Amino acid sequence: MKPITEVAAQLGLEPDQLELYGKWKAKLTEDVWASVSQRPDGKLILVTAMNPTPAGEGKTLTTIGLTQGLNRIGRKAAAALREPSLGPCMGMKGGATGSGKAQIVPAEDINLHFTGDIHAITSAHNLLAALIDNHIHQGNALRLDPARIVWKRALDMNDRPLRQIVIGIGDNNGTVREDGFLITTASEVMAVLCLAEDMADLRMRLGRIVVAYDMDKRPVTAGEFQAVDAMCALLKDAIHPNLVQTLEGDPVFVHGGPFANIAHGCSSIRATRHALKLADYVVTEAGFGADLGAEKFINIKCRLGGLNPSAAVIVATVRALKYNGGVPKQELLTENAEAIRSGFGNLRRHVENMRGFGVPVIVAINRFAADTEAELAQVADLCAELGVKAILSDAWERGGEGCRELAQEVAALADGSTEDTFQLLYPDNMPLAEKIETVVTRIYRGAGVKYRPAAKRALQELERLGVRDLPVCMAKTPYSFTDRPAVLGAPEQFTIEVQDIRWSAGAGFAVVLTGQVVTMPGLPAEPAAWRIRLDEAGHIEGLS
Amino acid sequence: MKPITEVAAQLGLEPDQLELYGKWKAKLTEDVWASVSQRPDGKLILVTAMNPTPAGEGKTLTTIGLTQGLNRIGRKAAAALREPSLGPCMGMKGGATGSGKAQIVPAEDINLHFTGDIHAITSAHNLLAALIDNHIHQGNALRLDPARIVWKRALDMNDRPLRQIVIGIGDNNGTVREDGFLITTASEVMAVLCLAEDMADLRMRLGRIVVAYDMDKRPVTAGEFQAVDAMCALLKDAIHPNLVQTLEGDPVFVHGGPFANIAHGCSSIRATRHALKLADYVVTEAGFGADLGAEKFINIKCRLGGLNPSAAVIVATVRALKYNGGVPKQELLTENAEAIRSGFGNLRRHVENMRGFGVPVIVAINRFAADTEAELAQVADLCAELGVKAILSDAWERGGEGCRELAQEVAALADGSTEDTFQLLYPDNMPLAEKIETVVTRIYRGAGVKYRPAAKRALQELERLGVRDLPVCMAKTPYSFTDRPAVLGAPEQFTIEVQDIRWSAGAGFAVVLTGQVVTMPGLPAEPAAWRIRLDEAGHIEGLS
Repeated sequence: MKPITEVAAQLGLEPDQLELYGKWKAKLTEDVWASVSQRPDGKLILVTAMNPTPAGEGKTLTTIGLTQGLNRIGRKAAAALREPSLGPCMGMKGGATGSGKAQIVPAEDINLHFTGDIHAITSAHNLLAALIDNHIHQGNALRLDPARIVWKRALDMNDRPLRQIVIGIGDNNGTVREDGFLITTASEVMAVLCLAEDMADLRMRLGRIVVAYDMDKRPVTAGEFQAVDAMCALLKDAIHPNLVQTLEGDPVFVHGGPFANIAHGCSSIRATRHALKLADYVVTEAGFGADLGAEKFINIKCRLGGLNPSAAVIVATVRALKYNGGVPKQELLTENAEAIRSGFGNLRRHVENMRGFGVPVIVAINRFAADTEAELAQVADLCAELGVKAILSDAWERGGEGCRELAQEVAALADGSTEDTFQLLYPDNMPLAEKIETVVTRIYRGAGVKYRPAAKRALQELERLGVRDLPVCMAKTPYSFTDRPAVLGAPEQFTIEVQDIRWSAGAGFAVVLTGQVVTMPGLPAEPAAWRIRLDEAGHIEGLS
Repeated sequence: MKPITEVAAQLGLEPDQLELYGKWKAKLTEDVWASVSQRPDGKLILVTAMNPTPAGEGKTLTTIGLTQGLNRIGRKAAAALREPSLGPCMGMKGGATGSGKAQIVPAEDINLHFTGDIHAITSAHNLLAALIDNHIHQGNALRLDPARIVWKRALDMNDRPLRQIVIGIGDNNGTVREDGFLITTASEVMAVLCLAEDMADLRMRLGRIVVAYDMDKRPVTAGEFQAVDAMCALLKDAIHPNLVQTLEGDPVFVHGGPFANIAHGCSSIRATRHALKLADYVVTEAGFGADLGAEKFINIKCRLGGLNPSAAVIVATVRALKYNGGVPKQELLTENAEAIRSGFGNLRRHVENMRGFGVPVIVAINRFAADTEAELAQVADLCAELGVKAILSDAWERGGEGCRELAQEVAALADGSTEDTFQLLYPDNMPLAEKIETVVTRIYRGAGVKYRPAAKRALQELERLGVRDLPVCMAKTPYSFTDRPAVLGAPEQFTIEVQDIRWSAGAGFAVVLTGQVVTMPGLPAEPAAWRIRLDEAGHIEGLS
């Protein structure tokens, strides 16, 4: 590892433009923006993926490897990633800092507390929750309806029994009511932090978060609890982008990490904007497959942040193509070029979708040891038919060196792109139901939308309140274009059923819930926490 | 403010012995201890207090002012303080970094997230909680009794309705059971961190924490959940002492902050030990008045850490003497030398108690603007009769300069003390009930102890389990020598009623609960959070 001051120097940053967190981590200070904001932007490259197997296809790995590759071929490139959450680190998934030779470091620190951003968000979230219940306890001057407090509590942990709880029991412990905990990444404070332009914008967005309804069904905002200044104070450092490095010493901004279902699943706009001023190429990723991640990246993050992606990389794997072609999990290691052909419809649809946004697209085949030549040839042929380049990427085994060709092709694609082809999927002022219909029919390729009674009521309520000019934030299974995880490939003639719609007034989007969305994960039978070891020299194993 | 590297240099520390958290905060690296452990210790000075008014008498202020004063008179002195908790910062009390010209800085950072220690403790605590409930959910191989899970959850927030909750309701959300949240400072993980010698000791203590009982009433420990390594990983940075400075640039170790009721209320043994190797005088404080704070400092922290205090400073104020003399709060600003005489019995008892420990003692009169000459003369006369020096301290108005005389006298007292006079109140192997009796009769000067049925059962259970060689950690109101907050002064012939006894097997003490002990505070009608302001330049007001 290089000292982080050295990594910053590669971006032209002076030591006094950094707030150091030890030798290997730093935050950019507030005044960096003023010194760079007049510069032209670098090229923004989105890394997204086809619908994945449950094991994931290596989107983060490819994002890091591509960044390393771009630097290897002499381009000034940085990555912009989301922060890992402790919940998954201790639960199912383990760390989220890449793997093999494409990692960001110091991985253990980044996976654990990092620079404290998520803890700060937990604190700000729970301060607001405590102030709301205290308001009721101290007389409830705002006449809040205790049955309609929509602001839950938050914890950065996978803790199943906190999903649904009853609080305030016992003597003089406040009002008894049903409540629950979200994992912090699902907190609207996280989404707000990731979308805020600066502290003034953060303050405005926090203030307008709808936390409850009063007895007259009026939405009551965070601003009405005198909570916003204290929340901003708690977030004063968290708003600054963090800088770390790849295993090969390339700069990586790691900032913000909203859930990819209940929120938009992208790292912060602030970090991306800073990166675009400091590097010529900025590689970023969005959560889940392109149907969810890329769509929300474009229609939420790019829309609100005024960002223009110059290229999109769709990560595909032989195993995900076979999986989408109907091969069961336990047979994914067996050669099966035919299954690739039938699973390719999934990848094709994502390629077409990215083209629909006017973003030049390339496919990165993230190579696994079990892939056979015949299978890889099959993928190459199918991509050629579709007129999209498919480049093998070997980030895991060879790091940046394994991504040279991908880097060359992506750089050429981005260099050749012009801003004027990029287009959002729908205009701001389209009615919400029409926006949902548009995403479902044009991105998922479904036949239409059905609304459950709760969703209908929510739509009517938003209409009554005059809420319309918001993008929609789709919450859907990442495994399928449909709302049923088992329907793989490129299904047609299906209907998406909307269960409910939640208004994230602070973040500035309407969350459309299809299927059951868990906002507090549970621990599996063998939690990742069991595998973590701290040796006597202070080294951690089993985390990344 | 000086750069923290400069403050460290005053202690002979090199930049590479620090882990920087920005320019003004640092942690000592792991290898500092090896390089200093063979040095002789400096003099340890305890700052404690008479029973306070609800507003507090300025113990932290005096600790900081005395450290500044010692440096002013040419002594190499450092302070060792506990970390502020966010709960009180946002609740009743506001910040906890001193005031006036005796503060530690950067105050806002220290009062908010600081170096993340308390967040790390919250995470480690809640990981253990999640693993326990997950164990039950996944089949309960250990046959835990869901009605006897004694490990609650923790949050660093004052949040009343979380005191007592029901978790796991709804479908497939785990086992429905009653639970509750502690404020993180009340977590046994906090107590353990403050008492641990090093990471090996921390690991051992965490592993032996009793978290539940099984169906056969066997105590089940944290070690049985494969949780300890992951908890240690979460605490790998938190175990390192933090270094900041006073307003006058003197070194201050701020590390750990256990509740002064449910735990021992002292900053970490590790920080104190490091400070004793690096400075000639180390000024530290203990929570609440001397009946609770100093007693636990000596019988828990000094006992477990092998520490030897060379002097004790008892902070008294004119207003606290009058308050203990029966003057109601709203009349404390009116001159009343007679009330001082009748309240002096309280201070006298604390002085005698400290002498009983064989620790040379001095009284610091923390001066307030409303104090009259007649009142101050009255205090001086009474102290002279008692044979104890009473020195005026003006840390608030004049900082170290206002504590020069106090510093001279304290340094002389500490220099003249020998280790062999110091004695603990009771030996390790005294039966628990006898230890309680000893504290009650010899420190509080009560007539005896009564046990409620729950306390009797707890004593019997500890006996059955062979638990005996632990110090007792008294949880009692800080306002009175008795267990009733309204009984001020120097009461006699009272009985202490023990409600319950809790085994903190990891920390290594038995908590003796007298009266109701709140381990999750609530917010007041006008929370301190309301007064916090963040201006456009990023400065916080209303916090310290």
